Amino acid sequence: MRYKCIIEYDGTNYYGYQRQPERVSIQEVFENALKIICKEDVKSFASGRTDAHVHAKGQVLHFDSDINMKPESWKKALNSLLPEDIHIKSIEGISDDFHARFSVKSKEYRYFINIGDYDVFFNNYTAYFKDLDIDKMKEAIKYFIGTHDFTTFSRFVEKKDTTRTITDAYIIEHGRFLEITFIGDGFLKYMVRIMVGTLIDIGLHKKKPEDINHLFEAKNRRLTGRTASPNGLYLWKVNY
Amino acid sequence: MRYKCIIEYDGTNYYGYQRQPERVSIQEVFENALKIICKEDVKSFASGRTDAHVHAKGQVLHFDSDINMKPESWKKALNSLLPEDIHIKSIEGISDDFHARFSVKSKEYRYFINIGDYDVFFNNYTAYFKDLDIDKMKEAIKYFIGTHDFTTFSRFVEKKDTTRTITDAYIIEHGRFLEITFIGDGFLKYMVRIMVGTLIDIGLHKKKPEDINHLFEAKNRRLTGRTASPNGLYLWKVNY
Repeated sequence: MRYKCIIEYDGTNYYGYQRQPERVSIQEVFENALKIICKEDVKSFASGRTDAHVHAKGQVLHFDSDINMKPESWKKALNSLLPEDIHIKSIEGISDDFHARFSVKSKEYRYFINIGDYDVFFNNYTAYFKDLDIDKMKEAIKYFIGTHDFTTFSRFVEKKDTTRTITDAYIIEHGRFLEITFIGDGFLKYMVRIMVGTLIDIGLHKKKPEDINHLFEAKNRRLTGRTASPNGLYLWKVNY
Repeated sequence: MRYKCIIEYDGTNYYGYQRQPERVSIQEVFENALKIICKEDVKSFASGRTDAHVHAKGQVLHFDSDINMKPESWKKALNSLLPEDIHIKSIEGISDDFHARFSVKSKEYRYFINIGDYDVFFNNYTAYFKDLDIDKMKEAIKYFIGTHDFTTFSRFVEKKDTTRTITDAYIIEHGRFLEITFIGDGFLKYMVRIMVGTLIDIGLHKKKPEDINHLFEAKNRRLTGRTASPNGLYLWKVNY
């Protein structure tokens, strides 16, 4: 039986989603909980990695198990074993055709910036910038929409195909918070944080909105500017 | 010259305000920053302690220094040396008559409970309870207002005088959050957390509002019920 989980985590204390030696990851903590229930190692598959200290409101993963338990019981059992900063929001039985990574249709990331007074309580959960020109940022973000080669907006060549499609991108002001949303078919390593970093530079009048087109054309990772900090970034939703 | 500071901190990673051996405190971190500026040990005096993992929106402290710097420069210098979870909100020169602890007229504490869905991002900053009878809690909190012997609502006999006056106490619902406010001339150790714990028991129908009067009369610490967790508690404001 295959199970699909929607999982939420506060990434502050974790070195990213993916299991790695000597540093605590979400995957390791999740699979440790799974192992206690299943009494054997069970592999889980997520929609993709998130970087160190990045958060998730709606990461999706799947795993297979023959244990005869209702989804609601799986949820209770897992949540009782998980630490307070990782939480299963929902769990459901799903067809074997489903794969948390390969079945992804689109992903939504959101990035939050505190543009009001500095506040210690938002520090792990938002970036902090003053005097951003929000109108310029709203003008600039439209340049990212569409199908582009995102080489300039990624950190390492990990994939040969650096073309991605962003179907929507917009900025909303919620009082003291700026919420920046990107929806697309896939995102390269650091891509959201580099796009946000570029928007911040534009908000600070260090770049212009139309510079984004030149950066796309250059296809040059050396022109990559600011990478926004991980604490403001949330994997918000994965669509299948 | 005496300086009065209003200081905000996220208590998650600290073992309380007061300096103690081998465990990191707000006071130690603040005085370390002060020492770098003053090039000597300088003692600071706060309005009172806060317990491990308790937060402050408006803790007040004072210190003396002969260094000739404007308050705004003190603020910048200290904030540049303090970690991101401790922040000086304001600093002003003040008369030598002022003492952060002995001049206190009243203090305001607030306690936050998430009564909506569990959310990992609120975990360090709110308690979490479902199905609380809020009307009963609102009825109950009024019993705390006035001058009482708070023996039953404190943890240790540290002061001979256990009489305190609560001038106002009320509960406000903000969407998914319950905000419980206590304003009074002083609070015994764990007093706010024990009062909130009692309100939670009343919200869960384990106690009745009128039980508070019996608990006051009993003056018996063994009858102290639930102590609410520190993560929901904020020293909100100190009045002089």
